[in-house]
Amino acid sequence: MNNIPSVFWLIPIASVVALGMAWYFFRSMMKEEEGTERMIEIAAHVRKGAMAYLKQQYKVVGIVFAVLAIVFAFMAYGLKVQNPWVPFAFLTGGLFSGLAGFFGMKTATYASARTANGARSGLDKGLRIAFRSGAVMGLVVVGLGLLDIAIWFIVLNEVYAGEKTALITITTTMLTFGMGASTQALFARVGGGIYTKAADVGADLVGKVEANIPEDDPRNPATIADNVGDNVGDVAGMGADLYESYCGSILSTAALGATAFAMNGDMQLKAVIAPMIIAAIGIFLSLIGIFLVRTKEGATMKDLLRSLGLGTNVSAVLIAIATFAILYLLGIENWLGLSFSVISGLVAGVIIGQATEYYTSQSYKPTQKIAEASQTGPATVIIKGIGTGMISTMVPVVTISFAIMLSYLCANGFDMSLSAKSLSTGLYGIGIAAVGMLSTLGITLATDAYGPIADNAGGNAEMSGLGEAVRERTDALDALGNTTAATGKGFAIGSAALTALALLASYIEEIKIAMVRAFEGGKQYIDAAGNAFDPTQASTIDFINFFEVNLINPKVLVGAFLGAMAAFLFCGLTMGAVGRAAESMVQEVRRQFREIKGILEGKATPDYGRCVEISTRSAQREMIIPSFLAIVIPIVVGLVLGVAGVLGLLTGGLAAGFTLAVFMSNSGGAWDNAKKMIEEGNFGGKGSENHKATVVGDTVGDPFKDTSGPSLNILIKLMSMVSIVMAGLTIAFL
Amino acid sequence: MNNIPSVFWLIPIASVVALGMAWYFFRSMMKEEEGTERMIEIAAHVRKGAMAYLKQQYKVVGIVFAVLAIVFAFMAYGLKVQNPWVPFAFLTGGLFSGLAGFFGMKTATYASARTANGARSGLDKGLRIAFRSGAVMGLVVVGLGLLDIAIWFIVLNEVYAGEKTALITITTTMLTFGMGASTQALFARVGGGIYTKAADVGADLVGKVEANIPEDDPRNPATIADNVGDNVGDVAGMGADLYESYCGSILSTAALGATAFAMNGDMQLKAVIAPMIIAAIGIFLSLIGIFLVRTKEGATMKDLLRSLGLGTNVSAVLIAIATFAILYLLGIENWLGLSFSVISGLVAGVIIGQATEYYTSQSYKPTQKIAEASQTGPATVIIKGIGTGMISTMVPVVTISFAIMLSYLCANGFDMSLSAKSLSTGLYGIGIAAVGMLSTLGITLATDAYGPIADNAGGNAEMSGLGEAVRERTDALDALGNTTAATGKGFAIGSAALTALALLASYIEEIKIAMVRAFEGGKQYIDAAGNAFDPTQASTIDFINFFEVNLINPKVLVGAFLGAMAAFLFCGLTMGAVGRAAESMVQEVRRQFREIKGILEGKATPDYGRCVEISTRSAQREMIIPSFLAIVIPIVVGLVLGVAGVLGLLTGGLAAGFTLAVFMSNSGGAWDNAKKMIEEGNFGGKGSENHKATVVGDTVGDPFKDTSGPSLNILIKLMSMVSIVMAGLTIAFL
Repeated sequence: MNNIPSVFWLIPIASVVALGMAWYFFRSMMKEEEGTERMIEIAAHVRKGAMAYLKQQYKVVGIVFAVLAIVFAFMAYGLKVQNPWVPFAFLTGGLFSGLAGFFGMKTATYASARTANGARSGLDKGLRIAFRSGAVMGLVVVGLGLLDIAIWFIVLNEVYAGEKTALITITTTMLTFGMGASTQALFARVGGGIYTKAADVGADLVGKVEANIPEDDPRNPATIADNVGDNVGDVAGMGADLYESYCGSILSTAALGATAFAMNGDMQLKAVIAPMIIAAIGIFLSLIGIFLVRTKEGATMKDLLRSLGLGTNVSAVLIAIATFAILYLLGIENWLGLSFSVISGLVAGVIIGQATEYYTSQSYKPTQKIAEASQTGPATVIIKGIGTGMISTMVPVVTISFAIMLSYLCANGFDMSLSAKSLSTGLYGIGIAAVGMLSTLGITLATDAYGPIADNAGGNAEMSGLGEAVRERTDALDALGNTTAATGKGFAIGSAALTALALLASYIEEIKIAMVRAFEGGKQYIDAAGNAFDPTQASTIDFINFFEVNLINPKVLVGAFLGAMAAFLFCGLTMGAVGRAAESMVQEVRRQFREIKGILEGKATPDYGRCVEISTRSAQREMIIPSFLAIVIPIVVGLVLGVAGVLGLLTGGLAAGFTLAVFMSNSGGAWDNAKKMIEEGNFGGKGSENHKATVVGDTVGDPFKDTSGPSLNILIKLMSMVSIVMAGLTIAFL
Repeated sequence: MNNIPSVFWLIPIASVVALGMAWYFFRSMMKEEEGTERMIEIAAHVRKGAMAYLKQQYKVVGIVFAVLAIVFAFMAYGLKVQNPWVPFAFLTGGLFSGLAGFFGMKTATYASARTANGARSGLDKGLRIAFRSGAVMGLVVVGLGLLDIAIWFIVLNEVYAGEKTALITITTTMLTFGMGASTQALFARVGGGIYTKAADVGADLVGKVEANIPEDDPRNPATIADNVGDNVGDVAGMGADLYESYCGSILSTAALGATAFAMNGDMQLKAVIAPMIIAAIGIFLSLIGIFLVRTKEGATMKDLLRSLGLGTNVSAVLIAIATFAILYLLGIENWLGLSFSVISGLVAGVIIGQATEYYTSQSYKPTQKIAEASQTGPATVIIKGIGTGMISTMVPVVTISFAIMLSYLCANGFDMSLSAKSLSTGLYGIGIAAVGMLSTLGITLATDAYGPIADNAGGNAEMSGLGEAVRERTDALDALGNTTAATGKGFAIGSAALTALALLASYIEEIKIAMVRAFEGGKQYIDAAGNAFDPTQASTIDFINFFEVNLINPKVLVGAFLGAMAAFLFCGLTMGAVGRAAESMVQEVRRQFREIKGILEGKATPDYGRCVEISTRSAQREMIIPSFLAIVIPIVVGLVLGVAGVLGLLTGGLAAGFTLAVFMSNSGGAWDNAKKMIEEGNFGGKGSENHKATVVGDTVGDPFKDTSGPSLNILIKLMSMVSIVMAGLTIAFL
């Protein structure tokens, strides 16, 4: 153990502090009053539905994990093409991610009634309860993520201590536990995304459009399912997504650091733990930010917004400054350049967030134009929304392109040559930029998870008949969440792209290791020119040349086509799933309106449970095929087209998937706010034909922004993860 | 001249025959009666509008051509970074493409009233007139294309006769005249696409949805503009698109052939003219097919369908057989393998066509499900349609992937190594597969151009009040066109992908030539390892390695991101353009309904001219920015990120653009037919709420399938073309 520097212990300490503070916030939230009997009853309904869903989902996921763990065990112990620790790392990655989802959602479902009750006494009270509950999710994610990383690092360090390539073996093995997180995230995002939008679309289509009753009206049988959906999709799904990005970025950066500084034992260890230290410090800075979010009694909407913004901005600025100190004190080579890599990642996140807000907020022209287009009916609303979403891809893509180039060049001293050193330090720079973006996840995820809690509080207030004033306050809390969510989304999507890129680079490292293993087992390699190829002596670029991973190789080009296709296919399948699930919901709601007399007059209680059941069943059934594809495509491409094909696939998937994700998220967000704009009384206001036209846009936007778009984040990371884990198999088939 | 083999003369002969037959079909169409005075008047309105539009468009395009020609002249004579013939080749490419559009559209606008009049006496008469008029377009395109190629080959062969690398210089110079065709096609597709959909969407939104009057009703002021749109978008736009693919595939294959067989003078010449000979023979076989499309008096719908199918299928089968004979008789090395390359291209075209039909025809489940979704309103129609379109990308992408691999491997004897010979012959195989797919363009384009003529005939019949029976016949002719168009689309999009791939390979050849020129001018190159790099001795793969065009180079990865973004941005801009243009149209139609008393009672004539003017003006204004971007993006990327960035851009753009194009075309087609299915009486039939929901889908689908989707074909080819033409500049900045 004595080769672990004492600064390392900051990492487990930070993770324990995060978990402790999460527990503290949870306890103090639980001490609040839950409100009237009706409020408690409704919250219990939602909680029961959400937990039932999670239980069902974990059952399915459990089976998938069992199967995959057996496959990995066979690869590790039977075929011997994989590190023996992989099956276990895989399982803990999945388990911890699942735990984070469970705790986060449990908190959210306990918090909604309490938030609504808090809003009865004032805006600020509501904000504090909702935000602190959101912080539970944020802190649990970073705490469990970092804990898992710290434990595995200690264990593997013990196992491989003294070996020459110990750190490379350790980091690449740990990287594969990201596969567990990815798999869990996939099901959480896809299943949760389908659930929430099936319920939402179904509830809106019959409730708002046909029966003309307001959102969250207790007469709507799908309304509980809709509220459950916010929890399983927006809380648990998003948490799992970001848990994966968080761990993935730290682990891939560590792996890249181990390679980049392989020649320099002392520096290598520092480079491996640097991303973990940045993340650890980020936890403390997030806590500072979280405590800054507090307001006086009788705070106005503007105060609240300033308060939330203050929290996230202070954390971001502090981490930027802290990075310089951390890297300097660690004594990392080129600490200044690497710090600027982190800055370029952070700035990119802010710019993407700002651009997201510009394209989706009703304060700016694009969304206003969509609302205006409602005057010529739903078709022009859709055309305008899709056009806006597609145009909105420009700023994020250009920004991320700059961030890639800058973080790469700052890290390697502006060396554009692809020499072994320049390339490896440059890629490490890209990785650490992603880590920087995600280091304050504790607070950014709090602002994100806050949204659905406020939304659910609104639902609870409406269903409990708490009156106009309370509902107005919960609406204000909800609107607040939408504004801050834009920034959060910028960081989520930007970091997913950078993480995927770092994973892509890590894939090549895994291939190296697999080849070295095979080579040492007696396998011979001959390169294109007919010379013997010795993987133990080859640099990254030598491997790239060995596999001919260039843009004239038809395998690479075909891979790129298939990658772009995978992104569209995946979206198409999830869109189709939402469509089908929503239709069953619509049929059920219509049936209840028809068969249960007195529902619409408020004299009979609808059968909420049946709708919850339908959403659960649909989501579980529908998530199978897209998830299966995301896992199978990279394996098949690897076996048929080899390493060149896989890298083509990952590049095509990343480029097309990132762009597609931005398009879908922004179109969806813009439609949502265009509708809100009309509901606020513009262009004819609520109930007008124009309003109906924007409701169509909003309904189409629901699966865009909450199912397909965010699921793409997972797809691009998961395809890389699967490739990494299967690298040994690809090489065995060579 | 004596180094040109006598078989070469088949090429100019075939082109003259094509033009002669086009003239013959045009004359015989003109001899038909045009019908009643009202019919003649309406046709004259449409013709006037279409010609006015074309004149206006050619003015704008003329300015662009003048500017670009000056730029190219400066590059050729001032900077000396380009072949001196390029400015002239560029201009003729544009001129011939423009002429083809002009003749095709003139024919179409004369044919519509005659088709309607023909339909008065019977289905078969209508079919014959419409189809033969469509054949004029098909034959003019292939005739002018091949003529331009033949003339330039003869001229340049004279100029460079005796030089060692004559054929490489000749073919790469000729390739740049494709740039003229691309530029012309861009404006034709984008401008025409915006025009036609602005008019169509505008006419539908007010006419069908608000005023409840049928399509093509003479009371609708936008109805003439709508009919003009069919001509400028679907006839002239599509013709220019395919003219470009046709020339591009032949020229890039010739250039690839010149490189592949550079070591073998005799074989080299054969490889260069082989694609031209296949195209020439294709003209004769297309003519056989065209003459096969004839029916007896009193033919049923089924007879017509069989007759049209017979024509295209016989041509396709004959060209497949003929290819074996041509390549064998030419004495091409590996003639058998190359013939199978052509077959794989042809089969891929057929499969993509079939898949297109499966996903968009009302005879199959996907479209039926969209129609069914109308029961839950327009939102689910849109969700289902988008989902279906995205899922529909799978078969085309997988098919084209197989076609790429197979045509590559058949051509190089299943050699997966990237040795100079294997790579160059393999790429030649991909090129010749595209040529095979497009060789029967004479007849496939006839079936495509037939559609809008039949559609216009229907418009004419409706506006002239020819009665139910005639209108039913023109509807049948129109429906027939939709079915055959699916196959045509398969070939168009498949060949665009293969052509773009061949162009991508040709880009590297252009880079080679530019570097050799600079090297011979005294410039020195140092490779990554610090050694002197001699471009005169380097193979393609050496260049690829020199520029580090591999998937770990951040320039390549950033290029791929930007390429994917370019596709989305371009679509977003064109969607936005249609939205804006349609809105002006809606406002104008509403104004006329309001201000011109008696329009809706049929007592006053609407001001058709004003609507034509609005569409023309909008299209001209709106096409500027997207077109500008398509030209500027590859130049900027080339100057900033160099050759590696450009190849990343082209690959990302091709993979994402192809997939996006399939998605948008198929979603649009499926919505269109889902609406037709309801209009035929399913799910409530015409006028029901379900019908209205599918009209929303159809309206959204209009710019999807007729503006943005097809424009992507051009974008992916044009970005390659621009890169090719600017190769010299990129190298000068190195």
